Amino acid sequence: MLQRLRGFRDMYPEYMRARRIVFDKICSVARSFGFHEVDTPSVELLDLFRIKSGEEIVKQTFSFVDKGGREITLIPELTPSVSRMIAARKDLIKPVKWFSFPKMWRYEEPQSGRLREFYQFNADIFGVANITADAEVMALAMEILDSLGLKGKYVMKFSDRILMEELLRSLNIEKIEEAFRIIDKKDKIPEERFYEEMLKITSEENVDSLISLLKLSGDVDTILSKFEHFERSEILASLKDLLKAYGKTATLDLSIVRGLAYYTGVVFEVHDANGEFRAVLGGGRYDRVVELFGAQPTPAVGFGMGDAVLELLMRREGVWPEEKIEVDYFIAIIPGFRKEAIEIAMELRRSGCVVDIDLSRRSIGKQLKYAHRINAKYTIIVGEEIKNGEVALKDMESGEQRNVKIGELKEVIEK
Amino acid sequence: MLQRLRGFRDMYPEYMRARRIVFDKICSVARSFGFHEVDTPSVELLDLFRIKSGEEIVKQTFSFVDKGGREITLIPELTPSVSRMIAARKDLIKPVKWFSFPKMWRYEEPQSGRLREFYQFNADIFGVANITADAEVMALAMEILDSLGLKGKYVMKFSDRILMEELLRSLNIEKIEEAFRIIDKKDKIPEERFYEEMLKITSEENVDSLISLLKLSGDVDTILSKFEHFERSEILASLKDLLKAYGKTATLDLSIVRGLAYYTGVVFEVHDANGEFRAVLGGGRYDRVVELFGAQPTPAVGFGMGDAVLELLMRREGVWPEEKIEVDYFIAIIPGFRKEAIEIAMELRRSGCVVDIDLSRRSIGKQLKYAHRINAKYTIIVGEEIKNGEVALKDMESGEQRNVKIGELKEVIEK
Repeated sequence: MLQRLRGFRDMYPEYMRARRIVFDKICSVARSFGFHEVDTPSVELLDLFRIKSGEEIVKQTFSFVDKGGREITLIPELTPSVSRMIAARKDLIKPVKWFSFPKMWRYEEPQSGRLREFYQFNADIFGVANITADAEVMALAMEILDSLGLKGKYVMKFSDRILMEELLRSLNIEKIEEAFRIIDKKDKIPEERFYEEMLKITSEENVDSLISLLKLSGDVDTILSKFEHFERSEILASLKDLLKAYGKTATLDLSIVRGLAYYTGVVFEVHDANGEFRAVLGGGRYDRVVELFGAQPTPAVGFGMGDAVLELLMRREGVWPEEKIEVDYFIAIIPGFRKEAIEIAMELRRSGCVVDIDLSRRSIGKQLKYAHRINAKYTIIVGEEIKNGEVALKDMESGEQRNVKIGELKEVIEK
Repeated sequence: MLQRLRGFRDMYPEYMRARRIVFDKICSVARSFGFHEVDTPSVELLDLFRIKSGEEIVKQTFSFVDKGGREITLIPELTPSVSRMIAARKDLIKPVKWFSFPKMWRYEEPQSGRLREFYQFNADIFGVANITADAEVMALAMEILDSLGLKGKYVMKFSDRILMEELLRSLNIEKIEEAFRIIDKKDKIPEERFYEEMLKITSEENVDSLISLLKLSGDVDTILSKFEHFERSEILASLKDLLKAYGKTATLDLSIVRGLAYYTGVVFEVHDANGEFRAVLGGGRYDRVVELFGAQPTPAVGFGMGDAVLELLMRREGVWPEEKIEVDYFIAIIPGFRKEAIEIAMELRRSGCVVDIDLSRRSIGKQLKYAHRINAKYTIIVGEEIKNGEVALKDMESGEQRNVKIGELKEVIEK
């Protein structure tokens, strides 16, 4: 028997119902913020991803040569495709606020919270350089989590590339790009290696100072009070005030890195409060990326949130929706009354109800058993009584059964 | 600049809004019929598709060898994955009614109504051998089209593999599989070639009879009256009666083929009434497919409907939804009142409204212009009046503007 590929998922109805509730909620919060949905191809030229991420990305993608000899790939992220869309439409009204929730693929070793095929919610604002836009996307991220019942169960941590640059310069580090490159991989390399590489561009004392700076995490005002003389502090303080107006709080944490070479301002990550899982979501400001794809220079800020870690967290916190299918009515049929039963089904379906109907021509006993197993709230039994314009209505929870006029069916049930 | 691949689409917000309305409607009708949503991987082992379709399918797929040396493919259809899901769960309650609306990919020459990447709605019933299930899926297909405003704009045509088999036998054709194979490709080969191949298994006179049979199309009773002595006629007549109970009609058309070798009973296709486009949707009964994937023998009937032809037809009939973005409120901000503006935005957003807010710190004149361009129904201007608990509310259509108490904002607007 042929199994599915490792890191891929089959999703059955019970599970899908829970996912649909979560996905709909996420999209509906994004819409309420004035974000509009877009969709992009799932397959793109591999070169599109090389532009932003270099040859590095190739190893992590499902990429291949197609029958036309083109190097193509399943998309591992959304920014390149969306940037191309921005570039292609000169008439777009800025700010542009877009979201999408596509499948993505990464050729990585599957593990808890990391799959080869996953869905990722993305929201971005293009065309606003002001910190107001950073606040709007960070608030959106937190409002989504709050709306999913995760209030108090997560921490929004942020850092800032410009502040970091000021800090590096204060440590007499002039090779800023090189320093960011090293800081970027700090958590993936041994501390000695970090020292070794840093010592090529600054003194041992400065590396020690840098390391303690990178450990700073906590209340925004407390940390910023150490950096009052830095220009960027004022902006970050105003970010904190804006978030407060949204009813949200964030922690300043200089260890948040997220590819400082790629981001140009605020970077942020949400982690579960226990720190048990990988990041729930991450994002930041990337003002110099969109122009790489042929657009006018376009300031941009946004975030991405995969479905896997979010689900782990929601399950742990007991807020993952119940996984069960259900229908409003099952219509059981006494032989000879199928036509009438179908007519009743269609009337209820058109009025917005979820209605299943016997298709198997089984006994009434078996039909009722099936109705129980698909969690029907009511069973409508269509038989002889239809000649008096009546059907039997059975409440599947209480077991109570009584005859009801067809015309009064909806009314009786709504009570 | 790197373009997207041919046969793939970038979808901007205006277009996505229309699509979302259509997609939501389709899924909501499927739910009302008691179908439950499932999701499958977009990438599968290529062998999974060879099982059902043989080597033929390989040419038409986006398939490749992955970094682990496996022959894998982007899914060109759903049946194999869904059959595997049926096989893997012995506890499933039959009948199983599933739908999904995934992306699929085919490596074919793009043309009107045929793309390399497309969405396809699928609905299937597993576990019911009775014609009642055929009627239920055909009715679902038609109810979806009716709900999209296409009533009277399409024709549901069906044929039947079992009737065809009886007809072939009545023409003394014994090599049924071979005959189906040839009939299957009838429309793709020249008539002489069809004759030539058919003459290998029957007489010229019989081929002529077969050709006139294949041209039969029209009222079910009229055509079936020619075949009263065939056992299958009764079943097909009852299919017609069942559809009538659903409020639907279908045409019996023996030219509908759809791979008779794969289907085991009724096959159907919906075409636009003018016959301008390729089929809008197609399906049928395939009782011997699911077991190929390791499941118990499982009767099955279902259909697939791509998004491309449906869109062409809806546009032609003027029922494609309007392509425009819109928001309920835009919140314009007088300098100094951003905090209060954000608080009002969040209150409205939480109450279910779609609310955009100034992020660009532009002049009020420019903010109002932006509000017009994003089709805001109202603009709320937050300024000095907030000190009296008031904001200015501007109706963007009438241009009328007046001051409103914040607490009464929702109430005033709902009127």
